[in-house]
Amino acid sequence: MQGFAPLSERYSGKRVLVTGGLGFIGSNLVRRLVRTGASVTVIDACFPDQGANLFNLKGILDEVALVIADVGRVDDISAYMVDQDYVFNLAACISHVGSLRDPLRDLERNCVSQLRFLGALTELSPGARVLYTGSRSQYGSPSYLPMDEEHPMKPVDFNGVHKTAVEEYHRILHGLGKLRYTSLRLTNIYGPRHQMHHDGQGFLNWFIRQALAGQEICVYGDGAQKRDFLYVDDAVEAILLAASDPRCEGEAFNLASGVPTSVKEAAETICGLAGNSCRCVPYPPEAVAVEPGDMHLDGSRLQKLLDWRPRVGLEEGIARTLAFYRRYGSRYFHEGRGRVALEASTLGLGASSEK
Amino acid sequence: MQGFAPLSERYSGKRVLVTGGLGFIGSNLVRRLVRTGASVTVIDACFPDQGANLFNLKGILDEVALVIADVGRVDDISAYMVDQDYVFNLAACISHVGSLRDPLRDLERNCVSQLRFLGALTELSPGARVLYTGSRSQYGSPSYLPMDEEHPMKPVDFNGVHKTAVEEYHRILHGLGKLRYTSLRLTNIYGPRHQMHHDGQGFLNWFIRQALAGQEICVYGDGAQKRDFLYVDDAVEAILLAASDPRCEGEAFNLASGVPTSVKEAAETICGLAGNSCRCVPYPPEAVAVEPGDMHLDGSRLQKLLDWRPRVGLEEGIARTLAFYRRYGSRYFHEGRGRVALEASTLGLGASSEK
Repeated sequence: MQGFAPLSERYSGKRVLVTGGLGFIGSNLVRRLVRTGASVTVIDACFPDQGANLFNLKGILDEVALVIADVGRVDDISAYMVDQDYVFNLAACISHVGSLRDPLRDLERNCVSQLRFLGALTELSPGARVLYTGSRSQYGSPSYLPMDEEHPMKPVDFNGVHKTAVEEYHRILHGLGKLRYTSLRLTNIYGPRHQMHHDGQGFLNWFIRQALAGQEICVYGDGAQKRDFLYVDDAVEAILLAASDPRCEGEAFNLASGVPTSVKEAAETICGLAGNSCRCVPYPPEAVAVEPGDMHLDGSRLQKLLDWRPRVGLEEGIARTLAFYRRYGSRYFHEGRGRVALEASTLGLGASSEK
Repeated sequence: MQGFAPLSERYSGKRVLVTGGLGFIGSNLVRRLVRTGASVTVIDACFPDQGANLFNLKGILDEVALVIADVGRVDDISAYMVDQDYVFNLAACISHVGSLRDPLRDLERNCVSQLRFLGALTELSPGARVLYTGSRSQYGSPSYLPMDEEHPMKPVDFNGVHKTAVEEYHRILHGLGKLRYTSLRLTNIYGPRHQMHHDGQGFLNWFIRQALAGQEICVYGDGAQKRDFLYVDDAVEAILLAASDPRCEGEAFNLASGVPTSVKEAAETICGLAGNSCRCVPYPPEAVAVEPGDMHLDGSRLQKLLDWRPRVGLEEGIARTLAFYRRYGSRYFHEGRGRVALEASTLGLGASSEK
């Protein structure tokens, strides 16, 4: 009954590859995997501004194999793709506004790289369990709320189109018997190890940054628009449960808390904990095109299947996040800190020993 | 009341760009456009085996500007993309089986090239009316029949994923006010000027080829699977009506006859006209993965909106197609005839005068 064993039993001794493993969710996932006793390889391209940060793996760098490369560079990384039991495929460019500025780059870094990577993976780790992290942006503006997995997919930016296309690559390869996939469509994950030097990803973390900098939090519009927030530790647990549960194979699920909260309420929760204030400002022009209004997902299908519920409420999660960045903010608040490609490259490919 | 004027009034004197204009549907469209008095520019990459054939424009080559180039080579073709009133964006790789053999090539030729092309188009012909030809393969296996435009999109091959992504590019650019698009999702168009040297596209035309070669027609499976066929002249009329009708702007429609017919019945209709015979054979292994069973579209939404109905029934359409290839088959039956890139290149870019 693999599906019901504790996580440590499911992953201990397993060979696990995490793409995007220096990023926000990826690094939290890697840290949890290392604690289970998995043998973890991390591949990360360290593209500027995407969130990769070597500090995210501080303290466990000796326990993982780290490869600094785009997942599309299969000739360079193939040695690290062999005989993996699990692949957590998180590598992606995730900027919505950025994809409108440079759609071709978004296409290259998402679809082209992923198609190369998945093609090689089916050869090097045939039958691997692959978990892909999709995005609520695949749905676009809501036709109804909460949005379930059957909601039409009409993304409002190129990034949403490409995130869907890559999910579809997984589904098609699954249908051809070449890998075993699950897709989890994420929405508003927040918490420690998120980049904090620009506001292009994860506005809740950006609010926390503003609070810690002693600034007023700027809420777009009237702040009444609702979102569903999920603390990263909860997201990581669900990801690990889903990837190792055979009942999740071959399907896409929403991963969501199921607790819609207004943006203003979230900002006020931060203010209550951090002692600063917030105010409403008009949407900037380039955000208008990708602003969906109320937007929250129905995560009940996955929650029921896994018998999983989030454990960390919004106030507790924000408090933990504030505590993390109060201690380590200097590693995240400045652009140079997020751009670790050069620093990491000096380690060489896979410099750390595999367990 | 532009929407209700005859086609000749809608297109006479207009600057019209047709991508993929040496191919099957594209060339039939170009011939019709030239008759309306439009000023037509054709761009075609002449990729091998995709159907481009210089003979398709025989007799009107002096009346169009012809550019042999991939639509993604925007630096080479930009001079031909300026101030177009209408763009019929038919250029695509459309092999389902081929996309499983070489997904990256399918991605490159469809998504990458189209994203480059559309980006340039929004600069060079801002506000142009753009008609994109999608495909029934975007839907994948039917959840219900006939499949309407709301049917989930779960294609069974990479080509279907990429055809959808390119449709989405049009929709997003429309939403941003950068072009005015309509997408028509086509299904089983047949008729003159289709390539006839391999069976990777358009099985009805391939049946006709077998009949003309005096071979038995090979029907896969028991032949009971239903399809909806549409004669190319009817498809061209609907394409021209939709592109010039403001009520079609910003939406995707099925273009279908609405008359499901079994594959065996279609084969027997050919046999009745051509005097040969047909037999059922097992599906070849690589066709199984992309075989959806019964598959026909609900085309009523577009038919009602345009007050358009197909005029050419299956028997009449097959008779016309047989007559065309009896006369010109030598131009279509051999591989070399379909690969016109070199021959056309000797004409130079845009060798023919613009009207």
